[in-house]
Amino acid sequence: MSPGTWEARLRLWIVIDGRNALGPGKVRLLEAIAAGKSLSAAAKQLRMSYRQAWKHLRLVEERTGIAVVEPHRGGRSGGGTVLTPQGKALLKAYHEFHREVDEHARSACVRHFNRWFSPRVRE
Amino acid sequence: MSPGTWEARLRLWIVIDGRNALGPGKVRLLEAIAAGKSLSAAAKQLRMSYRQAWKHLRLVEERTGIAVVEPHRGGRSGGGTVLTPQGKALLKAYHEFHREVDEHARSACVRHFNRWFSPRVRE
Repeated sequence: MSPGTWEARLRLWIVIDGRNALGPGKVRLLEAIAAGKSLSAAAKQLRMSYRQAWKHLRLVEERTGIAVVEPHRGGRSGGGTVLTPQGKALLKAYHEFHREVDEHARSACVRHFNRWFSPRVRE
Repeated sequence: MSPGTWEARLRLWIVIDGRNALGPGKVRLLEAIAAGKSLSAAAKQLRMSYRQAWKHLRLVEERTGIAVVEPHRGGRSGGGTVLTPQGKALLKAYHEFHREVDEHARSACVRHFNRWFSPRVRE
């Protein structure tokens, strides 16, 4: 069987003092909070308990030293959680970091594996 | 709490037709086979069943189209599994690929997060 399309795929973490401070899971949680302005809705969407979601946030904040969420002021529901300006900026920095490393990984993948896979048909 | 040392950490896969063909788990298995010249010893070392290990190998070979292992000829035990020359070369290519992307990720991490974490003490 010959391979068709082939590419690099990666997962990327910021590790502080040897521990995961920000990676795919925590980023997804922050994105869900940014979209829904609610920690409980974000947790539900990601199929984790409120307690697990809260723990993830606490670990991000403890390990980075950055307050990433704050209570949602205003709004009809009268409660909720939003990203702080710093939390939004940190998320943006992660996305830019991820995009750059991902692009590099894809081009490096072609360079390192072209002789293995290129003769085969690519879609 | 202020972060101490911080760095990027990544996991990297070669994905062929959308499926994992070679990544950290399969690479560890190939390395263990290269070191011990035995699939059953490699499986035991990695705490997986012989069947699981064999399945991983089959997936690598099916998805890459490359025969990565062969029976061990000779030797006192009279049996065993070794990497083919192509299998060794593929493993080497993965390591070079991984090293390059990892180095880039570490330098990109400093560039993207220096303003967040650099004022803090680094070990």
